Amino acid sequence: MAVPESGLDPAIAARLKRSADGLVPAVVRRHDDGEVLMLAWMNDEALHRTLTTGRATYWSRSRQELWVKGETSGHRQHVKAAALDCDGDTILLTVEQVGPACHTGTPTCFTDELPVRA
Amino acid sequence: MAVPESGLDPAIAARLKRSADGLVPAVVRRHDDGEVLMLAWMNDEALHRTLTTGRATYWSRSRQELWVKGETSGHRQHVKAAALDCDGDTILLTVEQVGPACHTGTPTCFTDELPVRA
Repeated sequence: MAVPESGLDPAIAARLKRSADGLVPAVVRRHDDGEVLMLAWMNDEALHRTLTTGRATYWSRSRQELWVKGETSGHRQHVKAAALDCDGDTILLTVEQVGPACHTGTPTCFTDELPVRA
Repeated sequence: MAVPESGLDPAIAARLKRSADGLVPAVVRRHDDGEVLMLAWMNDEALHRTLTTGRATYWSRSRQELWVKGETSGHRQHVKAAALDCDGDTILLTVEQVGPACHTGTPTCFTDELPVRA
């Protein structure tokens, strides 16, 4: 698929390996204790805005639009660091999280424990 | 898409929201310090084996086969805990990592830092 035009630095864009719908998953962790908060998706423009505004910005797959985290809830994410993985297909964001990260009101989205039986 | 038969507990399978190709991303973190190591993909059978054998098992999108992490490299992941997120579309694994998690030999896959200019 052709990558839509974005403001993303071409040197970074060239390192991204996107899914068929042009997205890359972003793992989000809290900067002070490293707790994993959530996973969201980015297109090139979302990554560009995240890196240049310091406000975590994602692509909403359900609404099909850019989504500045906390824009309506106030639960903003201020980006402290960002990294790409070895394959260029996943982003790790380190953020200062205002309020709960999860829309359910819990600090993280990973609250549904699965049994490990080994 | 129809979900292929697997040994996964139907009560867990019913909570999963899979991508168009039947997969769910799994974020992997180290149990002792919470460091985020990598992201890989699971189908239902990979999750079933992960939960029942305690050895992290993924679906290799490039090889299109189940992949027991460390099977050839010895860099195994012993699963300490697993959780599903609020939407049922991401898994968080907490593992004891033997050796480096990354195939490049680094402890984590997230070594390519991106500049945050805000």
